[in-house]
Amino acid sequence: MTIENLSSNKSFGGWHKQYSHRSETLGCRMRFAIYLPPGVANGEKVPVLYWLSGLTCTDENFMQKAGAHRVAAELGMAIVAPDTSPRGDDVADDESYDLGQGAGFYVNATESPWHPHYRMYDYVLNELPALIESVFPVTDQRSISGHSMGGHGALVLALRNPERFQSVSAFSPISNPVNCPWGKKAFTAYLGKDTARWAEYDASLLMRDATQFVPALVDQGDADNFLTEQLQPEALEASASISNYPLELNFREGYDHSYFFIASFIDQHLRFHGRYLGCSTLQS
Amino acid sequence: MTIENLSSNKSFGGWHKQYSHRSETLGCRMRFAIYLPPGVANGEKVPVLYWLSGLTCTDENFMQKAGAHRVAAELGMAIVAPDTSPRGDDVADDESYDLGQGAGFYVNATESPWHPHYRMYDYVLNELPALIESVFPVTDQRSISGHSMGGHGALVLALRNPERFQSVSAFSPISNPVNCPWGKKAFTAYLGKDTARWAEYDASLLMRDATQFVPALVDQGDADNFLTEQLQPEALEASASISNYPLELNFREGYDHSYFFIASFIDQHLRFHGRYLGCSTLQS
Repeated sequence: MTIENLSSNKSFGGWHKQYSHRSETLGCRMRFAIYLPPGVANGEKVPVLYWLSGLTCTDENFMQKAGAHRVAAELGMAIVAPDTSPRGDDVADDESYDLGQGAGFYVNATESPWHPHYRMYDYVLNELPALIESVFPVTDQRSISGHSMGGHGALVLALRNPERFQSVSAFSPISNPVNCPWGKKAFTAYLGKDTARWAEYDASLLMRDATQFVPALVDQGDADNFLTEQLQPEALEASASISNYPLELNFREGYDHSYFFIASFIDQHLRFHGRYLGCSTLQS
Repeated sequence: MTIENLSSNKSFGGWHKQYSHRSETLGCRMRFAIYLPPGVANGEKVPVLYWLSGLTCTDENFMQKAGAHRVAAELGMAIVAPDTSPRGDDVADDESYDLGQGAGFYVNATESPWHPHYRMYDYVLNELPALIESVFPVTDQRSISGHSMGGHGALVLALRNPERFQSVSAFSPISNPVNCPWGKKAFTAYLGKDTARWAEYDASLLMRDATQFVPALVDQGDADNFLTEQLQPEALEASASISNYPLELNFREGYDHSYFFIASFIDQHLRFHGRYLGCSTLQS
């Protein structure tokens, strides 16, 4: 596996770097970003938080806007942010912002014209961690988080693979995609009209039936324009009470769907993951 | 004076808001952003830090990328970020990124076609603070900071108006614009070929002759691509030693010209200004 370094910026004593590589899973070139905390310069191996972004985003939104590097540096935690879909001129796309490039929904598509490239579930679960763990000074301790479509992706990946993640969190996740317009549109396109096949990508359905648990933290702004129609965290809450899932769901008064909301609470999410990833509280 | 609210986002318990207004000074409609810390909801009046951005920026870059809201909320400090130039279809412009719209250089232009609109010096010194102090719950205690072209602007405004600012800081400022390509190009266009008229907009020349002091903090990355040709902080340092100016200039190993650098040290700049603005250390 060869990867190409695209940029490097020192940040809070560590390094923010962007890379591109040829993804076998997705059949295209992909870009990702990694934050490496200061400790790696001294030969430390650090655990990794994977961050999945929302609709229209790339690897850059979280790294530039979330203000996450400060506490990641302190905790000694790497953060990896992949892109949100396959990309390229030969990759299927759609004119709308919520389907196609920038809107991969972290599923493995089965339908035309999407299935040759749209396999973000496999990419984030397998190919990307294998690449990260072969190239960078990281351990195999992983947690996962994300925002909106990425919050959906993080929850689904952790719920289906509890042995692979130490903890999971989400901001404003699409909690019950089989029941919301964004989810119905994307799943119909990527997975087909048989709604029975959608269940394996629905966090609320997966959490309801879960028997193996990953500690889970969700934050949701109560002034989020997408709350009622698209996000539906109450479905997740209901499922958690059925399966006794260890879910902490916080409603935050006055906060919206933006990165200002994420920045306001990202420190708490990083410290939550840090506890399960074995980070010391002061490592900078 | 009427202003129009364009957006509101809760952030760290306070509010990030964008407004537009008709500027008499600039003869066009202008946008600015303000961060109001949580205390203003309880009737507190807070001091204001003005932030001037660099080439190509708007009010958004700092607010989205610097990670400044957390400590501003803690200190009880408002932050105001204006745009970097006049804007609009009837405002003169240039194809290059370093002249015209997005590149106002915080001067009052005297030359055609720039002089009818390009008066950012007066706008930031007079019209904008008057507007802010008439509309928002703020005191008349002001400090000023900025990045690159905006660092130049912050230093020049504070050096020429020490009675108006409690403190000044800059990241990677254009320290000696009369001697660098960016400055020579902009000053020739905006101020004319008579270089004697450039001196009132050159921080190093102003600092050399200063007799009234404003506490000043400058951070400069030593891996900044623009350091040698454009920024020249050693000129500022030499001037400070001549006039005994209270300048703290820090070179930061490995840091570049990006917002990752600003984010890494913005907390220190906010706490520096907070001391001179009378902010309590824990007010959130």
